[in-house]
Amino acid sequence: MIVACAQYAVRDGDPETNLQRSARAIREATDGGADLVVLPELANSGCDFYSREQALRLAEEVGETGENAGPTLRAWREVAKESGVFVIGGFLEREGASLFNSAAVIGPGLFRRYRKTHLWAREKLLYEAGRDLPVFDTPLGKIGVLICYDAWFPEAARTLALRGADLLCVPANAPDDWVPEAQRRGGLTILNVHAVSHANANRLFVACANRVGDDYLGRSCIVDPTGGVLAFGSEAEEEVLKAEIDVERSRREKRLVEHSHAFGDRNDDAYRVF
Amino acid sequence: MIVACAQYAVRDGDPETNLQRSARAIREATDGGADLVVLPELANSGCDFYSREQALRLAEEVGETGENAGPTLRAWREVAKESGVFVIGGFLEREGASLFNSAAVIGPGLFRRYRKTHLWAREKLLYEAGRDLPVFDTPLGKIGVLICYDAWFPEAARTLALRGADLLCVPANAPDDWVPEAQRRGGLTILNVHAVSHANANRLFVACANRVGDDYLGRSCIVDPTGGVLAFGSEAEEEVLKAEIDVERSRREKRLVEHSHAFGDRNDDAYRVF
Repeated sequence: MIVACAQYAVRDGDPETNLQRSARAIREATDGGADLVVLPELANSGCDFYSREQALRLAEEVGETGENAGPTLRAWREVAKESGVFVIGGFLEREGASLFNSAAVIGPGLFRRYRKTHLWAREKLLYEAGRDLPVFDTPLGKIGVLICYDAWFPEAARTLALRGADLLCVPANAPDDWVPEAQRRGGLTILNVHAVSHANANRLFVACANRVGDDYLGRSCIVDPTGGVLAFGSEAEEEVLKAEIDVERSRREKRLVEHSHAFGDRNDDAYRVF
Repeated sequence: MIVACAQYAVRDGDPETNLQRSARAIREATDGGADLVVLPELANSGCDFYSREQALRLAEEVGETGENAGPTLRAWREVAKESGVFVIGGFLEREGASLFNSAAVIGPGLFRRYRKTHLWAREKLLYEAGRDLPVFDTPLGKIGVLICYDAWFPEAARTLALRGADLLCVPANAPDDWVPEAQRRGGLTILNVHAVSHANANRLFVACANRVGDDYLGRSCIVDPTGGVLAFGSEAEEEVLKAEIDVERSRREKRLVEHSHAFGDRNDDAYRVF
């Protein structure tokens, strides 16, 4: 399968423009043969709102069946149905008076949603946090989702891995991470480093799509179960990264060498019970 | 305080030579003003033994009080007493008929030991695994120890951090990590990546000392709580890396920005109970 990460500029507070941009990115990915495409965090709305009321207006409902979902989700479902692609894209979600920083997991016959579990800073004043770390069983493999700051928590990646995830998809709006350029190696952001660390520790694939423009850092990445960086985005350019992956490797390569296994070598008794 | 990581060649099965080399490395570190020096894994013995009997002969006892400890441990204690330096060094430990891959934590008035909790591959056939992840309270700060493959387990780093560690010291004998050079960014090994990930996720300092020579990868590193790489070793040269650090940062910088805290933002209910 071919995994793509679409790195592009999201326009805060302009859902029509953002829908065009996500549709264009998905099309570019599918034209390149992608079976699955990861979009940035909050790809319908951006993340900078002048009021809660504005955020509530921009937010989309998922609806019980998805039939009455918001315009972005319906558009992504339409393209999934037409082209067969799977879309993992961040979106601003509303349920009644509550807001969530969510990601859609949409494919032919699949319409699910994950809610960000670790809210960053003032996000706590706007959103309610998700409480679950689900793994989505798809024909392409088992998919876990982490949204941006979620990836700073190794327990979250481990939990998804232990639940069987083959691929972690990470929609992100990661800005500056405050590491001085001289102390950063190979251009890797902290999000990249966590992606490589999670991929290697859990022996699975990780695909991060980060926003560019404004203060966002780009440098989207696709990482394999050894921690090898298969694709790496620039800091500022819009681009669709792609890598061909064999998700079966995430299962086969849990065994590292004879007598070593990424999960079997864990030492439960020694860990603090979280 | 100044932290040093001594990266040098350890000679398998030759404890006299290794004792000279560790003493020279410690002296170079203290001459450079180091308050604490990390040595590689199994710095008394190396790690390649032709028989269990040989390993038992090479191994050192700690002894009840340390008075009757093995020659390497006594030498490190002597230098700690004379110069005031703290030494965190890997050593092959024997207790009765049991072998452990251990690290000494030695300073003026301090003589403790940590036993590797995650054994790599055929190490399981030789050593018994440690069951605890202790934090050592020293005048320099609270020190946690991970030995090489231990650092592949984010739960272990997190456990030490939650127990108050300011600094993780990582004696290592890390060889090739099977990442193709083209997929490795900035020369970072997987051990380096985990070090940066642990440092940032847990907002603490990490100091890794890796062996060089034979098939060992070197690239020792000292990382600060943002994930900035303060010092980075070469692939093959013997060298003593140094960095001046303020361990108080590990406590202050748990708070990231207003409303965000590295530990407070954890979401226990969502994690699988490990």
